Amino acid sequence: MPLMTPEQYEESLRALKLEVYMFGKQVSNPVDDPIIRPSMKAVAKTYELAQRPEYEEIMTARSHLNGQQINRFTHIHQSTADLVKKSKMGRLLGQKTGCCFQRCVGMDALNALSIVTYNIDQEKNTTYHKRFCNYLKYVQENDLVCDGAMTDPKGDRSVPPHLQTDPDAFLHVVEENEKGIVVRGAKAHQTGAVNSHEIIVMPTIALKPEDKDYAVSFALPSDTPGIIYIMGRQSCDTRKLESGTVDLGNILYGGHEALVVFDDVTVPWERVFMFRENDFAGQLVEFFAAYHRQSYACKVGVGDVLIGASHLISEYNGTASASHIKDKLIEMTHLNETLYCGCIACATEGKPEPSGTYCVETLLANVHKQNVTRFPYEIARLAQDIAGGLMVTLPSEEDFKAPATQKWLEKYFQANAKVPTQDRVRVLRLIENLTLGTAAVGYLTESMHGAGSPQAQRVMIARRTNTDEKKNAAKKLCGIEK
Amino acid sequence: MPLMTPEQYEESLRALKLEVYMFGKQVSNPVDDPIIRPSMKAVAKTYELAQRPEYEEIMTARSHLNGQQINRFTHIHQSTADLVKKSKMGRLLGQKTGCCFQRCVGMDALNALSIVTYNIDQEKNTTYHKRFCNYLKYVQENDLVCDGAMTDPKGDRSVPPHLQTDPDAFLHVVEENEKGIVVRGAKAHQTGAVNSHEIIVMPTIALKPEDKDYAVSFALPSDTPGIIYIMGRQSCDTRKLESGTVDLGNILYGGHEALVVFDDVTVPWERVFMFRENDFAGQLVEFFAAYHRQSYACKVGVGDVLIGASHLISEYNGTASASHIKDKLIEMTHLNETLYCGCIACATEGKPEPSGTYCVETLLANVHKQNVTRFPYEIARLAQDIAGGLMVTLPSEEDFKAPATQKWLEKYFQANAKVPTQDRVRVLRLIENLTLGTAAVGYLTESMHGAGSPQAQRVMIARRTNTDEKKNAAKKLCGIEK
Amino acid sequence: MPLMTPEQYEESLRALKLEVYMFGKQVSNPVDDPIIRPSMKAVAKTYELAQRPEYEEIMTARSHLNGQQINRFTHIHQSTADLVKKSKMGRLLGQKTGCCFQRCVGMDALNALSIVTYNIDQEKNTTYHKRFCNYLKYVQENDLVCDGAMTDPKGDRSVPPHLQTDPDAFLHVVEENEKGIVVRGAKAHQTGAVNSHEIIVMPTIALKPEDKDYAVSFALPSDTPGIIYIMGRQSCDTRKLESGTVDLGNILYGGHEALVVFDDVTVPWERVFMFRENDFAGQLVEFFAAYHRQSYACKVGVGDVLIGASHLISEYNGTASASHIKDKLIEMTHLNETLYCGCIACATEGKPEPSGTYCVETLLANVHKQNVTRFPYEIARLAQDIAGGLMVTLPSEEDFKAPATQKWLEKYFQANAKVPTQDRVRVLRLIENLTLGTAAVGYLTESMHGAGSPQAQRVMIARRTNTDEKKNAAKKLCGIEK
Amino acid sequence: MPLMTPEQYEESLRALKLEVYMFGKQVSNPVDDPIIRPSMKAVAKTYELAQRPEYEEIMTARSHLNGQQINRFTHIHQSTADLVKKSKMGRLLGQKTGCCFQRCVGMDALNALSIVTYNIDQEKNTTYHKRFCNYLKYVQENDLVCDGAMTDPKGDRSVPPHLQTDPDAFLHVVEENEKGIVVRGAKAHQTGAVNSHEIIVMPTIALKPEDKDYAVSFALPSDTPGIIYIMGRQSCDTRKLESGTVDLGNILYGGHEALVVFDDVTVPWERVFMFRENDFAGQLVEFFAAYHRQSYACKVGVGDVLIGASHLISEYNGTASASHIKDKLIEMTHLNETLYCGCIACATEGKPEPSGTYCVETLLANVHKQNVTRFPYEIARLAQDIAGGLMVTLPSEEDFKAPATQKWLEKYFQANAKVPTQDRVRVLRLIENLTLGTAAVGYLTESMHGAGSPQAQRVMIARRTNTDEKKNAAKKLCGIEK
Repeated sequence: MPLMTPEQYEESLRALKLEVYMFGKQVSNPVDDPIIRPSMKAVAKTYELAQRPEYEEIMTARSHLNGQQINRFTHIHQSTADLVKKSKMGRLLGQKTGCCFQRCVGMDALNALSIVTYNIDQEKNTTYHKRFCNYLKYVQENDLVCDGAMTDPKGDRSVPPHLQTDPDAFLHVVEENEKGIVVRGAKAHQTGAVNSHEIIVMPTIALKPEDKDYAVSFALPSDTPGIIYIMGRQSCDTRKLESGTVDLGNILYGGHEALVVFDDVTVPWERVFMFRENDFAGQLVEFFAAYHRQSYACKVGVGDVLIGASHLISEYNGTASASHIKDKLIEMTHLNETLYCGCIACATEGKPEPSGTYCVETLLANVHKQNVTRFPYEIARLAQDIAGGLMVTLPSEEDFKAPATQKWLEKYFQANAKVPTQDRVRVLRLIENLTLGTAAVGYLTESMHGAGSPQAQRVMIARRTNTDEKKNAAKKLCGIEK
Repeated sequence: MPLMTPEQYEESLRALKLEVYMFGKQVSNPVDDPIIRPSMKAVAKTYELAQRPEYEEIMTARSHLNGQQINRFTHIHQSTADLVKKSKMGRLLGQKTGCCFQRCVGMDALNALSIVTYNIDQEKNTTYHKRFCNYLKYVQENDLVCDGAMTDPKGDRSVPPHLQTDPDAFLHVVEENEKGIVVRGAKAHQTGAVNSHEIIVMPTIALKPEDKDYAVSFALPSDTPGIIYIMGRQSCDTRKLESGTVDLGNILYGGHEALVVFDDVTVPWERVFMFRENDFAGQLVEFFAAYHRQSYACKVGVGDVLIGASHLISEYNGTASASHIKDKLIEMTHLNETLYCGCIACATEGKPEPSGTYCVETLLANVHKQNVTRFPYEIARLAQDIAGGLMVTLPSEEDFKAPATQKWLEKYFQANAKVPTQDRVRVLRLIENLTLGTAAVGYLTESMHGAGSPQAQRVMIARRTNTDEKKNAAKKLCGIEK
Repeated sequence: MPLMTPEQYEESLRALKLEVYMFGKQVSNPVDDPIIRPSMKAVAKTYELAQRPEYEEIMTARSHLNGQQINRFTHIHQSTADLVKKSKMGRLLGQKTGCCFQRCVGMDALNALSIVTYNIDQEKNTTYHKRFCNYLKYVQENDLVCDGAMTDPKGDRSVPPHLQTDPDAFLHVVEENEKGIVVRGAKAHQTGAVNSHEIIVMPTIALKPEDKDYAVSFALPSDTPGIIYIMGRQSCDTRKLESGTVDLGNILYGGHEALVVFDDVTVPWERVFMFRENDFAGQLVEFFAAYHRQSYACKVGVGDVLIGASHLISEYNGTASASHIKDKLIEMTHLNETLYCGCIACATEGKPEPSGTYCVETLLANVHKQNVTRFPYEIARLAQDIAGGLMVTLPSEEDFKAPATQKWLEKYFQANAKVPTQDRVRVLRLIENLTLGTAAVGYLTESMHGAGSPQAQRVMIARRTNTDEKKNAAKKLCGIEK
Repeated sequence: MPLMTPEQYEESLRALKLEVYMFGKQVSNPVDDPIIRPSMKAVAKTYELAQRPEYEEIMTARSHLNGQQINRFTHIHQSTADLVKKSKMGRLLGQKTGCCFQRCVGMDALNALSIVTYNIDQEKNTTYHKRFCNYLKYVQENDLVCDGAMTDPKGDRSVPPHLQTDPDAFLHVVEENEKGIVVRGAKAHQTGAVNSHEIIVMPTIALKPEDKDYAVSFALPSDTPGIIYIMGRQSCDTRKLESGTVDLGNILYGGHEALVVFDDVTVPWERVFMFRENDFAGQLVEFFAAYHRQSYACKVGVGDVLIGASHLISEYNGTASASHIKDKLIEMTHLNETLYCGCIACATEGKPEPSGTYCVETLLANVHKQNVTRFPYEIARLAQDIAGGLMVTLPSEEDFKAPATQKWLEKYFQANAKVPTQDRVRVLRLIENLTLGTAAVGYLTESMHGAGSPQAQRVMIARRTNTDEKKNAAKKLCGIEK
């Protein structure tokens, strides 16, 4: 039965022997670590919703390999309808978790590889696609979380991999033998890394022949010896270590990123999906990027939470009927739905690749992601406007409990008489969480840089624009002869 | 044969006996009037493209009434695919004409009526829908242009129709008899009015029982006695009367608007689609508005022309390789494609109404139109930035021809040596046309107010937002109990 | 000797017996509390710079009472030159501290009171101004920090003070006797409260006769019995409790806000500057608001720090020569200097009030503050763009020190080979601090709400616009007769 | 008597023998030409206001050469107060004319030359400054209008002057003799050229030794033989030839630009202010540019007119009390006053140059102009929003007069019953004029490109930013050792 329950997912993680470091110490049990656990719970939500009938259509799909019902996060898109559902699934989960649920990056890696392994085989008579399909079957049947690992540390940005002072600035093959290959390097900013069963590695840029050793893609169990995880810290992360929960804002879920080091790790051949195929590295990057830019559909769901919180705080503050508040709420919705249009349109306009996999329309996926680098910041600004200054001057949860201060805080932070002061505090903390705290990391900075920084999208927009068509349209209308 | 050629269309207009006024005089032959003719040519383009095999899929459809191939502008949408094609048709024609081609408003009126006449009949046991279908068949079989006429002059905006000092500030029924009804009033800003065979009148606001007489919808041949057209003037309109063509910018096409007065005009019963059904007036307005907000897909096509012209002028000016120029062109494309996402997404997310007609998703259609009230202005600003100041200081075409000045102008307005000065002038004039001239009326001001002014969309966005869902998502995450 | 050294200032604070609560406990020694101390150091900077000859002109002034050299923060503005220097002092200190230095609010309260006490006396033959001048002399001679306390908790925002369920939602007089008055209530969001020697209380809104008891202004030593301070918490506040300093970003300075409760506190008559003068409450609010909106000159200085950090990180990342990076840095500077123009212009256009005190031009001060509610957010967004995603995925300082992880972090977070990885980390942490951390509270949310939320400025802009002049100009040009 | 009356000014122009071409024909009498006359009237306003006591302080100054009262447009700035008054004069005249009044460019050329001629003399022991002062005296005593001519046609933008295919793409010296020099070339976009008594020519870019012949500055009477004027056309220009005035929008004033050709024109030595001093060309360009960027203070005045017109139309439409309309009017004012802050701040922060002339602060002047390339477009967009679609669909003035149509138009375009329909039409035409018509050329496109296109300001902003100071501030706060 390919659909795991959230409980089974949690147990499956416990079985892993990951080498994880955080705050200068090794973390023996990431699943129960208070900093990491909320991010695991967010991934678990992708399992939970897949069990619920009302979300079946969005959260599950039929495997094109064997027709079994699978979690959509392990599915290869077979139609534009699939692509549209992917966008809707992202929004849904963003709305349910209020943060990054970390599982889309693996889905995007699988789909990109399903296209590119096929394309390589067609041109080079290799067998990557077969290997990949076997691997995919394993992932689908076991309902696994895959970390799609692309971003190398990159060292000196003006220099290609083979000219770097430290050749490991980009991950590369250091040995090849009968069993497989040995790789060295690191992948940065890995979302949900320690909540994953598998890591799928891909190159991060187009590569020339001199960089052949860097043109490598493969998958490994996340607890393969030699893989080391160093957790990144987030704004307000240690509030999770405090006694209460109110100050967390989002008391249930979170995200995480890690640096993943590959300290001469062996990959068996059946897990190698691209080996020294530098002429296909760029293609893999572009397909993954296009899919992953679509994936920022999730921020629409997080935006729903922030808009909902802003509606609530306006009611709790007693300002909901002010025309300027209403107008700001409309503007937030307008921007959020404009984002929604982007992730729907790039899906609708998708097309099948030779492998049969449907890919989003690349120009529109880039346009969508470009807007994601802008609108959440403005939505967050408006949320702070509506929230009021109390959002950043609220005393701690402990002050709300301590006898010496409780009475004053309850008395003076009462606004709308029908609303308990505690509820007002909770919503303010949620808005803080989304605009300054742990969730701001995902809603703002990750919206900026995830799936490529803004300039990467602009380069693609320029490349995918049909400039000649536009110039010819203009020439015709003003009477310029060709 | 339901598809007319452009030539047949032009002839069919000549056969009409319209009462048209412009510049203080009656226009006996609008088809050949130099001010009006370019707008007729733009409508003719909707006939021309429907004849061309490469556009058949987008420009034509099969009538759901009889399966015949018809121009899509007379089609009732039978699927989301139809709605998507409608958006693509709008972009295509915007790109081909660089202006408003005027025919979508009738299509939107027909589709809105197909829904609402059905709904009234369902509730009230009337026969509006049958009447409407007969009329639709006539329109489809004769491939007619319909003007969808909604906007009343409105007089004092703080007062409903029946309380206006002048009861004619909104169009209304003044008499009812066996043959039909007699109506009085006017419709303002009627796009393409004198290029139309038919006028379909609808109320402009939701109406209360006191305003029953204003709740009327019907269709009339455009040359019905008592209908009077007074043409609006546009920025730079009289350049069409000058000897040359270069200064027009768009040397082929244009648009027009007119005030249409109904001076006690009789409508036969078979042409009456809503009669004193005030409780359905609001519904008709909303369906029409949603469709028509989608129709601003056309501005994406006009944006293509302006982006193309900006690419050209950067080449002709010799600035195409400057990084800030490239970046501005990317920004223009980004904004334009964001608009495209909107008109695609509201179509994709469309749903069938009880009559079977598919309607766009209303929230997204309003979001789309709201962006149309903003982005074309920024695209135009960037186009002016790229164009350079010469766009507004160029001497007239006659100076480029006169011996005393020609040599100086040719000499001093040469930039890129490979580009004739005349071509540079032509593109500059096109950008002037689109950002300040006759086409700016359509690309900017009509983008602002057509299909409802920005605030109308904001009201709808507020109304169509699922606020409770968002508030509940926020509550759950921060721990507020219901 | 009116100019205290920073050391003397620190000692003077130690002498205070404040009742302060934080994280559920009473803080016996705020000066050395690790959370509070950085904010004290920021205030101390206002003393330090006043000692340095190169800043003498900006940081000090001559008292108009006795000609002695005083810290400008205790000065009553005697000219537009003084107002301009105030703006420059704000930018200077913002640049030196990278945060809120907390001392302007007292200066603004003193200046507003110097005007309004005079105006009341003129109309009512009272002696408030003399009392105020005596108090001012005391402040100047002892070089004190005053907290200007205006914002009441406000309870139900739709109801005036006397109709609130809890009459203490606004601070008010509860008793009047020979020695003075007794007051009850609270002031929220009090910047730098526990770093202050004095608290100057003012009403927060215009008041009607029914609200006479709320129309009260006075000054008290900050450790007057009955005054209770409850500290607000900030994003990332507890990083100050960690062992290292790097993760602080700003390793030197910070800000703080507190709720200040007045639990039936007695004010002697000589410290009362307004007593039940409801008809002057609005005036006091407006003068204070105008001054305090100018004070957001400080954010230009904080912006300088963020722009400097962004320049640095672009060099450390190796992206400084990319044209899009350069362009973003220009945009940040452009926005920041536009803010600077606002705080200079409202000072230059200032005018003397009857008391002789110069006040800023109110319309422009509001326009300035309105921009402060917008541009820092965009500057912060661009800083995050330039910084790269590493800003939010960096492991903790402890990981950089721990043997198991140090080598990997040093190896893989090296970019520009000439820059130590640690320096790159430090700048990233500073940008995190300013855009998500403790300083974001001041640079963003306080920019939004401090000195009045955006809508408050818009109301004032509407009120201070000479609409008639503009309408008449338009009428004349288009030929409308009066 | 240095102050001419407007009547004297008009007569003085009649005395000139200019060679002017427009619409392919020579214009024998520009003063009375209906297209040109409104622009002459706008310049005349600078004479009229200088006669009125209430504007004496702003419009006039005392010559630093002889203490006589002179028109400020001929004044050399002697203080920051002078610079501030210059900004106020610009706003005042923009408000009074609603268009470009054309006289600031000459003032800016005079001031720039007063600095640079002095600087050259100091370094090279030349006598340019004396010549210049003699010339200045003549200008001041005769109260002349000078056209400051900088912008060359520029040909191929990637190539310096001496490498152009056509060496005349930049104006240059072709002969030198005892009497003076002979120059050849052209200046484009010359604002108010045919309303000027004098033309002051300056180079348009920094120049290298190879381009010495292009490093030339001089002044000539505008009717010197060999100078040829070819008028540029504007959007809606020919409405000035129609019988009525309403459709003009601005029924009184306008602007104009011309291409000015120098067909081997002789300049006597006493009129030569820079001759082959290529190392000072860049300096002259920068000083002129800084002054002229300040001069865009005028757009604040034009903005006042557009804001006034928008207030009026909201009243005439009956929408003035809608909260979104009020908010848009506030936003327009906010943006306009932000512009005002810029032109005031760069003046206030001005400093004296060695010659004694005060120059604006360059960084802020560039920041100001950069905002001018943005905000008027947004103000115009909001004006069109408030105006309503009728602005672009109004029939012509003749239709409002013709018996067949007048009754319908009067009836159906009545809104607010207290306002004559004609007044509503007039304001709509004024908004059309400012946002699409002749005045849009000045308010929008000229705001974009006048005094240098946006990118020119960005280059200067980058150059004038104290980046090191900012980087050091950041380093200190995050603990990076130098």
